[in-house]
Amino acid sequence: MQTVELTKAFRLINHGPTTIITSAHAGKRNMMAAAWVCALDFKPPKVTVVIDSKTYSRELMEAEGTFAINLPCVKQIEMVKQVGSISGRDFSNTDKFAEYGIETFAAQQISAPLVKDCVAWLECKIIPEPHNQGTYDLFIAEVVAAYADERVFSDGHWHFDGHDDLRTIHHVAGGVFFATGQQC
Amino acid sequence: MQTVELTKAFRLINHGPTTIITSAHAGKRNMMAAAWVCALDFKPPKVTVVIDSKTYSRELMEAEGTFAINLPCVKQIEMVKQVGSISGRDFSNTDKFAEYGIETFAAQQISAPLVKDCVAWLECKIIPEPHNQGTYDLFIAEVVAAYADERVFSDGHWHFDGHDDLRTIHHVAGGVFFATGQQC
Repeated sequence: MQTVELTKAFRLINHGPTTIITSAHAGKRNMMAAAWVCALDFKPPKVTVVIDSKTYSRELMEAEGTFAINLPCVKQIEMVKQVGSISGRDFSNTDKFAEYGIETFAAQQISAPLVKDCVAWLECKIIPEPHNQGTYDLFIAEVVAAYADERVFSDGHWHFDGHDDLRTIHHVAGGVFFATGQQC
Repeated sequence: MQTVELTKAFRLINHGPTTIITSAHAGKRNMMAAAWVCALDFKPPKVTVVIDSKTYSRELMEAEGTFAINLPCVKQIEMVKQVGSISGRDFSNTDKFAEYGIETFAAQQISAPLVKDCVAWLECKIIPEPHNQGTYDLFIAEVVAAYADERVFSDGHWHFDGHDDLRTIHHVAGGVFFATGQQC
């Protein structure tokens, strides 16, 4: 795992990969799949994410003011489908991490856990914009820390060749994904 | 070219492809490359796009209130690099379309031209949000019509196999692109 310079953090999501959003607040934590994540600015790096108002993640991230963007890879597709098809509210005494045996590690600047075996991670602080959040489920956040698996991202560049199982993934609909393909 | 149901229009961009934004106003027209385009809602379909305030496209699309999202493919990468590296303001008596021999066809509901040989097109009407536009260069728009090249998208599904030159593309930075890869 390598720290990514904040001025190059946009390169982690510029190609439009599907993500896992993690959040935590007051001892509770959750994770959800999210494809509607997009770069918004370079310096300081900002992103937009769309999070439905009915989700448990929304409750946690709004209460805490922070969340993490994790980039899952080809070998994690089944896990992405699992966590994307059930609500964190459906577990009374446990959570998705425990239920599915998903390992995490601590973020540096926020409370949300980071998902092991993903290939990149962005720690984000919400810039409150109540109108966007209320009307469009749209959040704007500043990226305050970023990391990547150096096997596939280093010195500001993705290099997936030889690591097909670590390619990022792109969801279309209904559990259909494409892997990030050949450089061209 | 096949019309795409508006409720399925989000599937054209859900996998995060890089786009060409076209715009037209008062007899002027322009095109620019834009990777920061994202779905925002299903029904009615909405999108977000980030357009720098200094661009000529921004001037045209704000004046007209509409723009189109075109999805270029692998065989158009050189064209995307060309139009993405020069401003429409740099041409006094012509424009990027004429300068680079880029053919277009008419949209149905808006004035912006659509770029031939792209693989999908979304006609968009801006929902005015002056704070987002002024503070973040962020536009919210409703998709009012959508089409796709039926060789690679039909019945709501992308199917690129056998059409590698028609795969959509994903820009990272500095002219480095990945093709949309294998379904997984």
